[in-house]
Amino acid sequence: MTPAPGPTRRTLADGRHIFYFDDAGTTHTRTARDLRELPSATIESQMRYDVLTGEWITMASHRMTRTHLPTTAECPLCPTTLAGAPTEIPEANYDVAVFENRFPSFAPAQDELLSANRFGPDDRRAVGHCEVMCFSSDHTASVGELPAERLRTIVGAWISRTEELSADPSVEQVFCFENRGEEIGVTLTHPHGQIYAYPYVTPRTQAILAQADKHFQSTGRSLLADVLAFERQDGARVVYAGEHWSAYVPAAARWPIEIHLAPHRDIPDLPSLNTEEREELAYVYQDLLRRIDSFYPGIDRVPYIAAWHQAPIRIDRHLGRLHLQLFSILRAPGKLKYLAGSESAMGAWISDTVPEAVATRLRELA
Amino acid sequence: MTPAPGPTRRTLADGRHIFYFDDAGTTHTRTARDLRELPSATIESQMRYDVLTGEWITMASHRMTRTHLPTTAECPLCPTTLAGAPTEIPEANYDVAVFENRFPSFAPAQDELLSANRFGPDDRRAVGHCEVMCFSSDHTASVGELPAERLRTIVGAWISRTEELSADPSVEQVFCFENRGEEIGVTLTHPHGQIYAYPYVTPRTQAILAQADKHFQSTGRSLLADVLAFERQDGARVVYAGEHWSAYVPAAARWPIEIHLAPHRDIPDLPSLNTEEREELAYVYQDLLRRIDSFYPGIDRVPYIAAWHQAPIRIDRHLGRLHLQLFSILRAPGKLKYLAGSESAMGAWISDTVPEAVATRLRELA
Repeated sequence: MTPAPGPTRRTLADGRHIFYFDDAGTTHTRTARDLRELPSATIESQMRYDVLTGEWITMASHRMTRTHLPTTAECPLCPTTLAGAPTEIPEANYDVAVFENRFPSFAPAQDELLSANRFGPDDRRAVGHCEVMCFSSDHTASVGELPAERLRTIVGAWISRTEELSADPSVEQVFCFENRGEEIGVTLTHPHGQIYAYPYVTPRTQAILAQADKHFQSTGRSLLADVLAFERQDGARVVYAGEHWSAYVPAAARWPIEIHLAPHRDIPDLPSLNTEEREELAYVYQDLLRRIDSFYPGIDRVPYIAAWHQAPIRIDRHLGRLHLQLFSILRAPGKLKYLAGSESAMGAWISDTVPEAVATRLRELA
Repeated sequence: MTPAPGPTRRTLADGRHIFYFDDAGTTHTRTARDLRELPSATIESQMRYDVLTGEWITMASHRMTRTHLPTTAECPLCPTTLAGAPTEIPEANYDVAVFENRFPSFAPAQDELLSANRFGPDDRRAVGHCEVMCFSSDHTASVGELPAERLRTIVGAWISRTEELSADPSVEQVFCFENRGEEIGVTLTHPHGQIYAYPYVTPRTQAILAQADKHFQSTGRSLLADVLAFERQDGARVVYAGEHWSAYVPAAARWPIEIHLAPHRDIPDLPSLNTEEREELAYVYQDLLRRIDSFYPGIDRVPYIAAWHQAPIRIDRHLGRLHLQLFSILRAPGKLKYLAGSESAMGAWISDTVPEAVATRLRELA
């Protein structure tokens, strides 16, 4: 595997950073300037502690005005060409481009207290980072159909950005993810993912860490490693069994289609992957996306969320363990799994599918 | 307030129970028989313990075949008339009718262990109850527009059903709620709510109980009572200030429109309400629904979830406190708040609205 070149760092007209990650074997100079007149955006995100649940809620009211399903001619994630208006990406083409979101939920700032909260930590500025990662110049592409080399570039970009964002002392956890599909509210159809660098450990991660701690206290072993070992041995829910990675439908899956992909080695995050693991990941990640896309006859693009769970940066790293949670809310052609009263108000999940049947179907699609 | 008559209990063709709650001052004999040939439904719900989060996931695969947005002529919640096919409700008209769901997520059964789980409690039958509560014979009605007397009947029906379901030793928590709107996946548009009687304490309730316990340990006081007292005194987020009830937008609201309604007296559940509290509740509940419905100019029916949080039946009743969580995912006309990667995968909530602005708008709509 030829190492891809490091990213080229440039700056957009309003001072935001953009990073170009190019496929191995290509040579590009990324020198195009952003010629827009773009005032700095005013970011007024704040976080408030929800005393009823013990969770932080981020309030980003400036996001109300963000771009919503623009036509292709107006897509801000397309490259900038002479034919159209300048976009967020000054180059005339790119392989993978990552830039700071103009409408971020978390933004670099002083960690400022805003108002007192007599029931818990005070309201504060939502400090952190939100980045957009574009996977292709081609507005109509999807990750499942990109050339193999591009998947390697994407893996490299996740690792590079996780490393850099983890070095910011205000960041507690880095989350690389892709939301795909208008059905889940994606406002831009151009193939892209996102990276959130949170100033706190997220609620699902906290729940997993608490469970992992209980398991460690009682067995001395890693919960996530033990679950992986059990699934590999049991086999009923396994979707992919590789040399360095395995994928399975979790026994208590909550989404209509849900796959967990985990490395065989105990590692906390994407930067800890070795060369062989990265190479296989570039293959299996795309393989799983293709299986999701072909899950329902007659549909070729299934909405999905691909979510990388990485260990927190500063606390409980020994309890965290890297894994991908890949899931879809499509429960049948034309039918979505909605979160209504039981899920949204009580957190009590009702699923219509059986994990073993979902795994059987996913295996058939090899 | 004339006391409404107690419910009339009848049985449907497949053995399920139906309860008619009639408005005070009316006299009906509810003797119509269900003449359908209706085989008993096979219910195979199970619950599995999700070891990653410590939560129960219920799997109800028989629900895949449930009725989905039928035409008015086929609505199973309309009364049975000579003109059409028989429905779930044998009477030719009704005020409020409650019956056992034919496709329940939780159903009465032996509490049976199904498979071993080496990482936590074993898989088990999803024992409990799921009931449907129809608010009106009128297919096109909405709760916000029903006559005042009907709201009293609805309050009485919630109380009566909560009392009876709480007496079942397999039930840990009773949840009365209404999902309204196709936008949140409601499959039947006839005005109706639901009641779930869970065999476990739900995750949100567990989170609230844990926070309330911490608060009680450090102050000796009730968290939910202290939050209510603070909101009433502060006033910035108050929507309704009555004699026995107050409503406010929570300081860390997670939904685009969210209101919490709480009684002034420390009580665990709906059956604990006294006569005056019931009377005011019938008024304020409808008042809040009307404010939600008129929140956005040009829209007269806003999708919402109305969720009654009642204390668990057997544990921690002193930490639970009755309140209604009323919320909408509509963040602007035609724009829904979707739960994408941050919320669905990480549990990290991002809101686009500011609670104080939402409260101001809701107050204006009085």
